[in-house]
Amino acid sequence: MKRVFSGVRPTGRLHLGNYLGAVKNYVALQDDYECIYCVVDLHALTTLEETATLKENIYEMMLDLLASGLDPKKCILFVQSQVPEINELFTLFGMITPLSWLLRVPTFKEKVKMHPDNVNYGLVGYPVLQAADISLYKADVVPVGVDQLPHLELTREIVRRFNEKFGDTFPEPQARLTNFPTVVGLDGKDKMSKSLNNHIELALSEEETAKKVMSAVTDPARQYKTDPGHPNICNVYKLHNYFSPQAVAQITDDCQNARIGCVQCKRALAEAINAYLRPIRAKRSELAKNPDEIYRIMADGAERAGVIARQTLDEVREKMNLR
Amino acid sequence: MKRVFSGVRPTGRLHLGNYLGAVKNYVALQDDYECIYCVVDLHALTTLEETATLKENIYEMMLDLLASGLDPKKCILFVQSQVPEINELFTLFGMITPLSWLLRVPTFKEKVKMHPDNVNYGLVGYPVLQAADISLYKADVVPVGVDQLPHLELTREIVRRFNEKFGDTFPEPQARLTNFPTVVGLDGKDKMSKSLNNHIELALSEEETAKKVMSAVTDPARQYKTDPGHPNICNVYKLHNYFSPQAVAQITDDCQNARIGCVQCKRALAEAINAYLRPIRAKRSELAKNPDEIYRIMADGAERAGVIARQTLDEVREKMNLR
Repeated sequence: MKRVFSGVRPTGRLHLGNYLGAVKNYVALQDDYECIYCVVDLHALTTLEETATLKENIYEMMLDLLASGLDPKKCILFVQSQVPEINELFTLFGMITPLSWLLRVPTFKEKVKMHPDNVNYGLVGYPVLQAADISLYKADVVPVGVDQLPHLELTREIVRRFNEKFGDTFPEPQARLTNFPTVVGLDGKDKMSKSLNNHIELALSEEETAKKVMSAVTDPARQYKTDPGHPNICNVYKLHNYFSPQAVAQITDDCQNARIGCVQCKRALAEAINAYLRPIRAKRSELAKNPDEIYRIMADGAERAGVIARQTLDEVREKMNLR
Repeated sequence: MKRVFSGVRPTGRLHLGNYLGAVKNYVALQDDYECIYCVVDLHALTTLEETATLKENIYEMMLDLLASGLDPKKCILFVQSQVPEINELFTLFGMITPLSWLLRVPTFKEKVKMHPDNVNYGLVGYPVLQAADISLYKADVVPVGVDQLPHLELTREIVRRFNEKFGDTFPEPQARLTNFPTVVGLDGKDKMSKSLNNHIELALSEEETAKKVMSAVTDPARQYKTDPGHPNICNVYKLHNYFSPQAVAQITDDCQNARIGCVQCKRALAEAINAYLRPIRAKRSELAKNPDEIYRIMADGAERAGVIARQTLDEVREKMNLR
């Protein structure tokens, strides 16, 4: 069974964009791969201005990941910093990674634009830390979106260099290009994201969900209920595709012929989202009753990940003549 | 008792330049401070092309350090990578150190000139790793030469930033500016160094030492034994100052009045060096008989350093809300 690794930044409660864009896929992979999923708090530190909410964000995210179907019996789910061996491999990989490779990574350039006053040493090393994550667990396969391909290519280059210098140690991880949908937010413009507050959290109540959905921007060309709609430019329509696939043909027809108004259409979407999320939310409430169990799952994940990490590091130290 | 930290790169056998320039001072500090001395193999990796000789270099250096008078009963002497907690503090400090601070460090610019094809991420982080070393052990005092002052200032800036962001955790280490002599090599031109092969290793035999000394360049203006010499431009004269202080006045007089030739003068220097090193060499031979004991001293040092390191990291993680 091939091994999958993926990391998710602890941004707090998951929203529909995270769920459809990544987590749903993580759940599906559990049956076909040995999956290792990591909440990457060290990566988060590269751009965090303060860390007060970090612990809570990790906890809330763990609740959502487990409620969404990540199963500690099927996968290893852990928090990055709780397996401190990552720091050693990060240090060692940094010794063989040219600075020039890092400065030309497109996402680094973007981050420099976004955080011009906070370009720290750790941020430059973001892809080295990713390479160390993947390699510490000798993952064969990494599920990535197209935008992450340059990072994975960098991991492959670092791995290749290590293997050439010190002897065959790591597999060159392969991309598993998944057709991750980019879920547009309720504003109908930007990618759904917490920072833009255009998102719907999995953990909302049904009422909160309905209220959020009712605020969504629809086809801006349709000013009156009697105007025919244009589903292909309407974000509510796109969301129907995920949550009401069986009703989409009818909705298209009704909208284009002005037989339903946007309010009615959004009400239907809210119901569909709530129906979809009902079992996830029920499981979340159940899990939230016992925080100790969540911390136990984290600790257990870190222990199992740590066993693999220590094996890898022993081999690395021997290959590098460090011990 | 204040705590001193210093790191020494594992370049292999020590030579007179290392001894007079640093190690002699380390020995002296043991009586007045709680001293922690670290063989910094991770720092060595920032510029090493290959690591085949690293283990042997560490072992040989340990022999020399112990023979020179570092006493595991008085100080903690250990190998950097054997306390892996250093990697975690290095990662965390990297998150609060602006890249711009690192790119303007003078020694970084020099290293870029020396190793233009090997400017790796780890090399950029050299001062961050130093800051982590010093801070992991909460050292109050760092013995430095003038050329190391910018690095120590960077450590102080990183520490200050950490304390401001996360609350008082680390002392701002103070420089103990020692008048480290820069020992010139046998070529009479450059600083004594292994890479220039203008050095005298502590571990040489007396015959080898004499042969090396006899090859030393003296006053180039003195072509014949009957020419008067110029001690102030003669490197052999400078070495006499360290090893024959009681005879220096006489040597000056004899040289300036052409009463002794350079051969005779160098023979006297070789004898003085051999006399000085005799007890160190005897101790080295004794220690070399039992390599297991050297490894035991390393392991014991790492264990004692590790206790302090883990205490510090626990505090760091709590302050940063990581656990």
